[in-house]
Amino acid sequence: MRNLLLTLCYDGSAYHGWQVQRNAVSVQQVFQQALEKVTGTRPDVKGCSRTDTGVHARRFCCSFHTEHTIPPERLVAALNHFLPRDVSVLACREVPADFHARYSCRGKEYEYQIWNHPVRNPFLRDRALHYYYSLDLDRLNAAAGAFVGRHNFTSFCSADARVKGDLSRTITCSQWRREGDLVVYRVSADGFLYNMVRILVGTQLWVAAGKLAASDMHGILSAEDRNAAGPTAPAAGLYLNRVFYDSEDVNQ
Amino acid sequence: MRNLLLTLCYDGSAYHGWQVQRNAVSVQQVFQQALEKVTGTRPDVKGCSRTDTGVHARRFCCSFHTEHTIPPERLVAALNHFLPRDVSVLACREVPADFHARYSCRGKEYEYQIWNHPVRNPFLRDRALHYYYSLDLDRLNAAAGAFVGRHNFTSFCSADARVKGDLSRTITCSQWRREGDLVVYRVSADGFLYNMVRILVGTQLWVAAGKLAASDMHGILSAEDRNAAGPTAPAAGLYLNRVFYDSEDVNQ
Repeated sequence: MRNLLLTLCYDGSAYHGWQVQRNAVSVQQVFQQALEKVTGTRPDVKGCSRTDTGVHARRFCCSFHTEHTIPPERLVAALNHFLPRDVSVLACREVPADFHARYSCRGKEYEYQIWNHPVRNPFLRDRALHYYYSLDLDRLNAAAGAFVGRHNFTSFCSADARVKGDLSRTITCSQWRREGDLVVYRVSADGFLYNMVRILVGTQLWVAAGKLAASDMHGILSAEDRNAAGPTAPAAGLYLNRVFYDSEDVNQ
Repeated sequence: MRNLLLTLCYDGSAYHGWQVQRNAVSVQQVFQQALEKVTGTRPDVKGCSRTDTGVHARRFCCSFHTEHTIPPERLVAALNHFLPRDVSVLACREVPADFHARYSCRGKEYEYQIWNHPVRNPFLRDRALHYYYSLDLDRLNAAAGAFVGRHNFTSFCSADARVKGDLSRTITCSQWRREGDLVVYRVSADGFLYNMVRILVGTQLWVAAGKLAASDMHGILSAEDRNAAGPTAPAAGLYLNRVFYDSEDVNQ
């Protein structure tokens, strides 16, 4: 019995996130259907995280145990043959038996894309937030810097999906950059709460708009109250960029 | 009566090109519908060119005469309100009465995008040709250089749509570049024959694959025979990038 770790890339526009759901098509569902066509079995596939409806992934990870002996590189090609065009498998590697795409995860990196131009971009519909007014990167980065380090992110967790336990997370990167008319926020942490990146973005856009000051971020964190933060930015701009594991697990 | 020149950007995936057709949705059709909602009239809109089904445009130009007195910047906003999300108006300016988006055109620039990676890119489906094998830019550019200058491009014109008259065109730029895993061909000319860019790309990809040599391009040009050139590359990778007019016509 082998344990396989697969890296997927998907345009989430047409999907209700990763996780299988009743009455809605998920990426996990189309992936499991392709896997069944290739292997003839339907193993229990573990994803590194749920993702919201419309969220994209440049490198999403999932793992499953299989008796099938197909070589990893042939599995990649076979799955890509059966997967729809908005989902592709980038890589496959064998990992230790106790590896689990979600529980073995040490951290993730997300990016949030904003098309910052008076006119919408037809090529970025469903792929970026369209923001009309000029964004001041210095203001955004002053706010972004306040999130780096270990903090309780209760204020940045969707109130209707509060998990029990410690809501502290360590952010190791929180930075805005501009690429022409595209403005991108990159954030890495050891873990993320529900809607955390989208609320971080929505709050920082309030800083850009002058509704909040960058110096307000500390007070919002210490309030530990969702109502203290700004709105939840739309899902369409969000990309799961990378998933981090202990290197010995994922030797290629 | 004013004559207005508009610049459009569109994702052509869902359209049967620019030109209005029976039983198929075109960009011109959705544009004219939006124009009718804004101005209450249905002027005869001239496009700078037809474009094939599935071809995209970063800056497409069209012009029309109107009695309507709406200021250009308000017309842009109003049209964008009524247009579908895969079409947007970037700019509008008043031009001389005898200006015609097609007949006043002095040249165009196209780009052709290739996703050059073993695995397809879900974000570039319908937006780039997927080419599996490694592309050698030096070989491609050796071929591309042969097209610069004034040549008879009969060999690079779709045989079923041959126009009468002179099939000579002057190419002023013909160059390949790599941006990570994306390989882009840029070509500018005073005019293009039907399917010319797609046949230029298909032929150069045969050079990349070793089916032709870069030095064969001269012979293909002088053959003046469509059968001498390579295949027509798919429409999805093609972008109309810029349209050139005499500067006095389009003073902003």
